[in-house]
Amino acid sequence: MSSQFRHVALIGKYPSSGASGGTTRAALEDIAQFLSAQGCEVSIERETAMHADLQGHSTLDAAGIGAQCDLGLVVGGDGTMLGIGRQLAPYDVPLVGINQGRLGFITDIPLDGYRAALAPMLAGAYDEDCRSLMHARVVRDGRCVFDALAMNDVVVNRGATSGMVELRVEVDGHLVANQRADGLIVATPTGSTAYALSAGGPLLHPSNPGWVLVPIAPHTLSIRPLVVNDAGEVTIELVAGRDASANFDMQSLASLLHGDRITVRRSEHQVRFLHPQGWSYFDTLRQKMHWNEGGA
Amino acid sequence: MSSQFRHVALIGKYPSSGASGGTTRAALEDIAQFLSAQGCEVSIERETAMHADLQGHSTLDAAGIGAQCDLGLVVGGDGTMLGIGRQLAPYDVPLVGINQGRLGFITDIPLDGYRAALAPMLAGAYDEDCRSLMHARVVRDGRCVFDALAMNDVVVNRGATSGMVELRVEVDGHLVANQRADGLIVATPTGSTAYALSAGGPLLHPSNPGWVLVPIAPHTLSIRPLVVNDAGEVTIELVAGRDASANFDMQSLASLLHGDRITVRRSEHQVRFLHPQGWSYFDTLRQKMHWNEGGA
Amino acid sequence: MSSQFRHVALIGKYPSSGASGGTTRAALEDIAQFLSAQGCEVSIERETAMHADLQGHSTLDAAGIGAQCDLGLVVGGDGTMLGIGRQLAPYDVPLVGINQGRLGFITDIPLDGYRAALAPMLAGAYDEDCRSLMHARVVRDGRCVFDALAMNDVVVNRGATSGMVELRVEVDGHLVANQRADGLIVATPTGSTAYALSAGGPLLHPSNPGWVLVPIAPHTLSIRPLVVNDAGEVTIELVAGRDASANFDMQSLASLLHGDRITVRRSEHQVRFLHPQGWSYFDTLRQKMHWNEGGA
Amino acid sequence: MSSQFRHVALIGKYPSSGASGGTTRAALEDIAQFLSAQGCEVSIERETAMHADLQGHSTLDAAGIGAQCDLGLVVGGDGTMLGIGRQLAPYDVPLVGINQGRLGFITDIPLDGYRAALAPMLAGAYDEDCRSLMHARVVRDGRCVFDALAMNDVVVNRGATSGMVELRVEVDGHLVANQRADGLIVATPTGSTAYALSAGGPLLHPSNPGWVLVPIAPHTLSIRPLVVNDAGEVTIELVAGRDASANFDMQSLASLLHGDRITVRRSEHQVRFLHPQGWSYFDTLRQKMHWNEGGA
Repeated sequence: MSSQFRHVALIGKYPSSGASGGTTRAALEDIAQFLSAQGCEVSIERETAMHADLQGHSTLDAAGIGAQCDLGLVVGGDGTMLGIGRQLAPYDVPLVGINQGRLGFITDIPLDGYRAALAPMLAGAYDEDCRSLMHARVVRDGRCVFDALAMNDVVVNRGATSGMVELRVEVDGHLVANQRADGLIVATPTGSTAYALSAGGPLLHPSNPGWVLVPIAPHTLSIRPLVVNDAGEVTIELVAGRDASANFDMQSLASLLHGDRITVRRSEHQVRFLHPQGWSYFDTLRQKMHWNEGGA
Repeated sequence: MSSQFRHVALIGKYPSSGASGGTTRAALEDIAQFLSAQGCEVSIERETAMHADLQGHSTLDAAGIGAQCDLGLVVGGDGTMLGIGRQLAPYDVPLVGINQGRLGFITDIPLDGYRAALAPMLAGAYDEDCRSLMHARVVRDGRCVFDALAMNDVVVNRGATSGMVELRVEVDGHLVANQRADGLIVATPTGSTAYALSAGGPLLHPSNPGWVLVPIAPHTLSIRPLVVNDAGEVTIELVAGRDASANFDMQSLASLLHGDRITVRRSEHQVRFLHPQGWSYFDTLRQKMHWNEGGA
Repeated sequence: MSSQFRHVALIGKYPSSGASGGTTRAALEDIAQFLSAQGCEVSIERETAMHADLQGHSTLDAAGIGAQCDLGLVVGGDGTMLGIGRQLAPYDVPLVGINQGRLGFITDIPLDGYRAALAPMLAGAYDEDCRSLMHARVVRDGRCVFDALAMNDVVVNRGATSGMVELRVEVDGHLVANQRADGLIVATPTGSTAYALSAGGPLLHPSNPGWVLVPIAPHTLSIRPLVVNDAGEVTIELVAGRDASANFDMQSLASLLHGDRITVRRSEHQVRFLHPQGWSYFDTLRQKMHWNEGGA
Repeated sequence: MSSQFRHVALIGKYPSSGASGGTTRAALEDIAQFLSAQGCEVSIERETAMHADLQGHSTLDAAGIGAQCDLGLVVGGDGTMLGIGRQLAPYDVPLVGINQGRLGFITDIPLDGYRAALAPMLAGAYDEDCRSLMHARVVRDGRCVFDALAMNDVVVNRGATSGMVELRVEVDGHLVANQRADGLIVATPTGSTAYALSAGGPLLHPSNPGWVLVPIAPHTLSIRPLVVNDAGEVTIELVAGRDASANFDMQSLASLLHGDRITVRRSEHQVRFLHPQGWSYFDTLRQKMHWNEGGA
């Protein structure tokens, strides 16, 4: 048996609405066979199994994967990977991503030729890439009314046809500012390449233990993105504005009330992504950002 | 009779919801007396009269003001001024703004001491400041379903808890780009100091015959604000995205459908604001933007 | 004779230092033959002839081209085109650009296959693209000490190892602001895709009669790019700072003195670039800016 | 004896060129008397003593202060404080700043009323604010040719009248990007409110162990500020460009050669600033940045 991973969970991507874009049964079957040939026991994640039942493999939910598996193999894009990452975070199961389409920031193994990339990784030759998670809550009248993990970002933003919101931002109980804006993003290093980047935020290397606070279209022009230490607690209170919502990696609570407080703390868990040996965060960044292509 | 303006319409500001912040009756009465003393006939705008009936003055709606008055005197802030500007645009009545609070970009005469500023203006010593307007429409299946003038901006943006919209932007029938973003702002020079500025747009001097297109949190990082000639037609088609809305100076049409086309053309009308002689756009800009204060 | 252009000047690109990158003699000869075959008289620009003497064609300097030719055909990149544009601006000779390498914003005909693009243009089927020029001066103690045309931009910036400069900016004699910064760029629409863009400025469509003023790393965070009407005069006075320089399309005057005033006016001339029919500024922009490539 | 600090070094600010702006002898004498009355031994920093000799106090250079003093009291602005911070970094002497003019980010005790602020601090009631330093080098042909500490930033930038530089940026030996730009800033959290901020960088809270890399007017529009962990080594190699220079907190090496490598590592030292109890970094930030003033 060549694999250092004894039991691998195989996880696909399934569009919520039956639209196109999901992982094909053929791809999963091929990968399952490959893993078996490498000496791994293979189980299928429950939702994946509902879409593509593969003979001869047990079906496991997240808790089952956490209890039994020592590797998760995700066939999908970054979004799928982050969703699974959130679910498996409490169980410390490392994840590898195989991508059927354009490579992502995290899912960097192409389906074509995955065997050449995966075989050495199963044998123990991989680079590890740990990512922090946020634990975010909406606190109303002292009670937590919404609660989720986020790998990318926590966003508070205004309603679609209403004006700006006013947000009171605190870090560890210290007032940062009262900001009038379309909204505010608090992003992890992982999320710094997503929405926060579109809103004008900086890139954060995953080894930097920080969150970045990025205002969206702030009224005060001298307000700038702010990077804090992720050991602290960020609090955002809705002071004014109608129809505001809180979005934790797109898990949403609409209709925030004035006085609602969104709190963001570093989760005790983190997620471990495995990459082929020699992987460099910057190589991926450079490629995804179209740097060094000679153009504008 | 010292005033070159024969018949002045007096217009106040009234909060929509009975909240505080409206023009006081005392201020209006004082100004009406002053105008009469300068030899002007004074009429009261209809909505203003509903809130503060002043004896001895006729009441006029926008069409009446347009037909009879040769000056509109607005007591309020920039928002009030822009609203009245839109209403009176077809009638070419110049406007003067008296501000009860913090001076605005357009309403630059403080209520304290308005007489010293206003007397020479009534006598003909003023600077004129012409502003363009947009005529914007939402076209669905070839029919116009929404239609308004805008002095500041035309905004298409995403729903609060949905992801990005995809917008196909054309100028005079030429494709500019397919943009995925939170939204897109098309702003006049007047609007370039408002929402467009918060979203990262440049300032446009009112003498520049341009619109500026400012994407809000665009996915593609190399997309930048674009200034076009206002003689052309800007078209924004909603290609993808849920719960998007169109906002013309905050006059909103929610629930845009895929394929809806928002068109923006220069209105045949423009609005003339009058300022005390020696007025400089840049003086106002510098003050409002807190430039030259030695700070960050 | 099929060409509507009777006499064409052929102009190549030659690196200042004998480095690689110049137009090849073979390319020029091929184009000259093609033009002759279309019925055009062909002359060679003087500096071009010094590098690649072509038999049977007269040699002309800029004044000669201006007096005798009705078309200039430039084989090179945007930089070459802008340099020739400045020289020929007084003579109103339209220009066409053939590019040996990566296509530019203006030089949009590839050398491979230039015949198919050029033949209809010579026959009169082309789109015209007029660009404004700046006439910029450095005025010291009331005297003009430096004076040039610029197609892209006028830049005042600090010395390499000194701190910020302080610049007093005026438009038509009105103070805009005292700015402390690394420098200030005043760009034409043509220049808005060059240095001004790197410094954070907006794109200006060539049909917008504006200049954009873009501060470089300004100390005051609320200072933003400003678009003015190009009918006015922009003045930049050096108030403080050592080793500052003025650069007009990279034509430089170093060692500015305190009190030096750089003035920028619209030149009475403009430059006409001809493009294949159906040309769209936005198509070029989209391609050069890497928009719509699905990436970040 | 109420002071927990036994021996205090008193340090003033002296303009390099005899210009105005230095600390007054009267202020120093007053502070020295106050410190003596609190039971402290007071020495005068050598350069300070050259400008304002105070009777009855010994004179010490940096090494002497490091050996004998347990507090440095700086009367000046942030620039003075950072300069002294660099000098005293090896000796771990905490610093307090008294400001004669507009308060700074670090020097937050006004000369007027300094006694009320200082007395409790001497008694041990203070908040400590630790700042990291960079140790930067220029390496040419394998040899270090320039070497300095920096509290704010390490900057590589182009010559004044030359074009862009091309810089190869690495972090811990991994290529980040080849950047063509006016230059590149590597800033500490302390420096993130200085030049890096003007160039578009984010704010870094001092508790975040990061550097921020901020390109100055980069050619590639998708290049963004990047925050890395300060445990790593940042290397910048000059690939192309004339007259480039390296500036470490304004300590400059001009005329960089192609192939020169600028390396930045975290210094083993850090600087401790003391503030009155209850001090908040964010309070200072909000005030210096003019947030929450209701304006643009």
